[in-house]
Amino acid sequence: MEAMEALPKEETLQLRQKHYGPSCKLFFKENPIKIVRAEGQYMYDEQGNQYLDCINNVAHVGHCHPTVVKACTEQMSLLNTNSRFLHDNLVTYAKRLTATLPDKLSVCYFVNSGSEANDLALRLARTYTGNYDVVVMDNGYHGHVSSLIDISPYKFNHTGGEGQKPFVHLVPVPDVYRGLYRENVPDVGEKYAMEVKHTIDAARRQGRKIAAFICESLQSCGGQIIPPHGYLREVYKHMREAGAVCIADEVQVGFGRVGSHFWAFQAVDDEACPDIVCMGKPIGNGHPMSAVVTTPEIAEAFGATGMEYFNTFGGNPVSCAIGLAVMDVIDKEDLMGNASRVGNYLMEGFRKLGEKHDMIGDVRGLGFFIGVDLVKDKKSREPATVEAQHIIYRMKESFILLSTDGPHRNVLKLKGPMCFTTKDADRVLVNLDQVLTEIESARTRKHALLPAKVEAASSNNTLEHAVCSYRKDVHSKRSGPIFTGSHTLSHDALFGNTKRPTDNDSDDDEAKRQKTWAGVD
Amino acid sequence: MEAMEALPKEETLQLRQKHYGPSCKLFFKENPIKIVRAEGQYMYDEQGNQYLDCINNVAHVGHCHPTVVKACTEQMSLLNTNSRFLHDNLVTYAKRLTATLPDKLSVCYFVNSGSEANDLALRLARTYTGNYDVVVMDNGYHGHVSSLIDISPYKFNHTGGEGQKPFVHLVPVPDVYRGLYRENVPDVGEKYAMEVKHTIDAARRQGRKIAAFICESLQSCGGQIIPPHGYLREVYKHMREAGAVCIADEVQVGFGRVGSHFWAFQAVDDEACPDIVCMGKPIGNGHPMSAVVTTPEIAEAFGATGMEYFNTFGGNPVSCAIGLAVMDVIDKEDLMGNASRVGNYLMEGFRKLGEKHDMIGDVRGLGFFIGVDLVKDKKSREPATVEAQHIIYRMKESFILLSTDGPHRNVLKLKGPMCFTTKDADRVLVNLDQVLTEIESARTRKHALLPAKVEAASSNNTLEHAVCSYRKDVHSKRSGPIFTGSHTLSHDALFGNTKRPTDNDSDDDEAKRQKTWAGVD
Repeated sequence: MEAMEALPKEETLQLRQKHYGPSCKLFFKENPIKIVRAEGQYMYDEQGNQYLDCINNVAHVGHCHPTVVKACTEQMSLLNTNSRFLHDNLVTYAKRLTATLPDKLSVCYFVNSGSEANDLALRLARTYTGNYDVVVMDNGYHGHVSSLIDISPYKFNHTGGEGQKPFVHLVPVPDVYRGLYRENVPDVGEKYAMEVKHTIDAARRQGRKIAAFICESLQSCGGQIIPPHGYLREVYKHMREAGAVCIADEVQVGFGRVGSHFWAFQAVDDEACPDIVCMGKPIGNGHPMSAVVTTPEIAEAFGATGMEYFNTFGGNPVSCAIGLAVMDVIDKEDLMGNASRVGNYLMEGFRKLGEKHDMIGDVRGLGFFIGVDLVKDKKSREPATVEAQHIIYRMKESFILLSTDGPHRNVLKLKGPMCFTTKDADRVLVNLDQVLTEIESARTRKHALLPAKVEAASSNNTLEHAVCSYRKDVHSKRSGPIFTGSHTLSHDALFGNTKRPTDNDSDDDEAKRQKTWAGVD
Repeated sequence: MEAMEALPKEETLQLRQKHYGPSCKLFFKENPIKIVRAEGQYMYDEQGNQYLDCINNVAHVGHCHPTVVKACTEQMSLLNTNSRFLHDNLVTYAKRLTATLPDKLSVCYFVNSGSEANDLALRLARTYTGNYDVVVMDNGYHGHVSSLIDISPYKFNHTGGEGQKPFVHLVPVPDVYRGLYRENVPDVGEKYAMEVKHTIDAARRQGRKIAAFICESLQSCGGQIIPPHGYLREVYKHMREAGAVCIADEVQVGFGRVGSHFWAFQAVDDEACPDIVCMGKPIGNGHPMSAVVTTPEIAEAFGATGMEYFNTFGGNPVSCAIGLAVMDVIDKEDLMGNASRVGNYLMEGFRKLGEKHDMIGDVRGLGFFIGVDLVKDKKSREPATVEAQHIIYRMKESFILLSTDGPHRNVLKLKGPMCFTTKDADRVLVNLDQVLTEIESARTRKHALLPAKVEAASSNNTLEHAVCSYRKDVHSKRSGPIFTGSHTLSHDALFGNTKRPTDNDSDDDEAKRQKTWAGVD
């Protein structure tokens, strides 16, 4: 299907600047992408350029999957109302969802977003335990509503954050690559779990009472972290001894993404079972829906207060039909098998690249949840923050959508639609190889310039500036496309006056930039 | 279109009891309705019975409106992704939405639910003012996430609530029928506004600093309250003098429901303009979406913290396409005009019934947002709580869906799909007339039984018990359908052994109930 854009890109951008919250950021701020259609793992811009999508973990079974669209249309034509009426879709979906989980996790609440799910999980935990405090993993992110900003170090400890509140207790990330205990420490899982025990004990000494421990089963924004075997069961044990309940935030990592299991907590520790599981993003392939699943005991305690929980849209027949369709597609197309196969293929590929490129420090993942930890060099493991941002921009030029995360923003994240193929994987690997080669080549020649700039990269703004300067250094020496601090330019645009096909700026702007950049090299 | 049920009703109910949170209540707990399809203002159960929907303010332009379904299907087949990519639907919708508002309200945030909208509004207000406290209207309800339970007296002051927190300040409901100042008090709006001023002053004396005043422009759960003219402008003035911002919660009452204006705050006070408007329920005709609109100044202050606001589903192209379609239908079908015409017709009808029935104490509303305040008698204005519950059950027997709300649960709420007709209105009026006549007739004969039972109706459970007993009193003397505490039975079922068409219980259960009830009359 061909999609037309209704407005010129520049007008879209201007209207957005006028009418949309400035806190809502665009990918590639300086030359954002306008996407008009998508299919499977591919997205298309207004000029018809095809992008390979490595990052949209929401379009789980593939963008615009016809089975999901059909389920939505059919149910939406028939009935879409609230859960105060009985409906078969709600109960069928609840039964199907709970069947993927350990028996004790049998009671659902259907909500609209991961944030609503995690907030409800906190309410359940606090009501059940009668306690208030929350233990969270450092760098964790659990959502955008007030109660979750409060328990997300990824937010409260960074720009614009209000810092840690007294009822929040942090535990270290069980990151065996750059954390407190590393891959060669014996019983590393127990050691990290013991840190949690210490946190609990410290909280108790202050007279605090813990309601919940919440962590993503695999930490996403925190840098694609796979906790070591044995960690989760030990943490859960310590938390339960402290009277707290254990919440698995599977919003980003659930629904078979890890390949081997439907839920990530099952994949990282076959003996760990949370008391509450929160689901979101992939659950409806883009349709706004989420869920919380818990035990009958916790659900009954919440119900026993007598306060009704009513969620206007949660559990409506359309959302449930979509949820069922997504599960159908995962099964019918063996997307978990595909995630395992392609994920392993990709990770092997990255590891092979790592033999050639000193910048690939660590390759980690499960199924199609993969992180490539970029470093200055393998020995120091110093995060290659600026380089990582550069790679993202360069991959965009090759029409590959990647992103970075982690506290140092140096970890490449791959978590695209589950229909990703080995051919797609090859496209990523070949392009990454090329960009790494370019960077290494430029570094060899201009090495002295780099360290100071990376150190300067402490805030977002400074980081952007550093990336910009770094790009200048790298690109002044190579022949590929080139980026500036405020614009994206191809080498040809800069030196040969040829406009990039995705560039939609006026010729005037183009001329200005050429002038600016003429003096750089 | 004919809809088949996938499961027998009893199995749906059992699965729901097993797999869905017990805090999530059903309408008509003792014999809930299973709805399988809907169209316009009509909903159909699994037996094909047609219910007239007077309560679903979410199905705003009519259940399953084909224009909305078409917009969803087309966009969902093309692209559904997050707002980090540029898309024309987002900006077109933002432009269209802000065009309905005063000029200064020009910046949107798209989210997934009224709760997300109100929570974000609090975050905006707190960031902009640097203050934390919130002034709310008594009986107000603003959503189900933690931060909103805290500021919703409808929740925190009732069963399972934790009471009022120190940062929350209550002001009286400007209810001119049963509030502090009544309809015959001169300058009643200013008087209620002065109460807000007193609250602000008291908070200040405690050293508290107010971030926001939030109220529904027309209070819904609080009992369908229409604030007196001049109230809102005065309150907003006092709040701004105190350094706070004013949030209009239009989640339940916006989008032309009041008929005369697109937003309820415009209808109740042409000189009041909030700083933040929160929208929800009707915005997507059932699709999970919501929005916050504010001023550039507040949006910039929020942006200036440097913290990104990312909402996974908010502002996706499908939600925006649906939002645009809903606005199209409102315009093309003149639903605001219809709301005015049918709303006025209904209110006139209720007032005429009020001349005949002493139980109709007050009829109030704007457009198709109507409340009928039921009383023991017009003079005392004592709320007719038990009777109101009875009426709801009796109307259900006539296949009319109504509900009650307000602190005494005695106010009949009418806020159904905006395509409601005068014929539908007649159906409501005729049936209500009949039920009121029945009640009055029974009361005349058995008057002594009533007062003690109403007094006993302090909690939900006690209320149900009281309703049950009351039903026995009423029905033992009349010939219409009859209800029991735990089941709904027709008169024929009780006395003539004929099963109700909507009843799906086993014959065994039926026999037991007949036995139980045989001794009652």
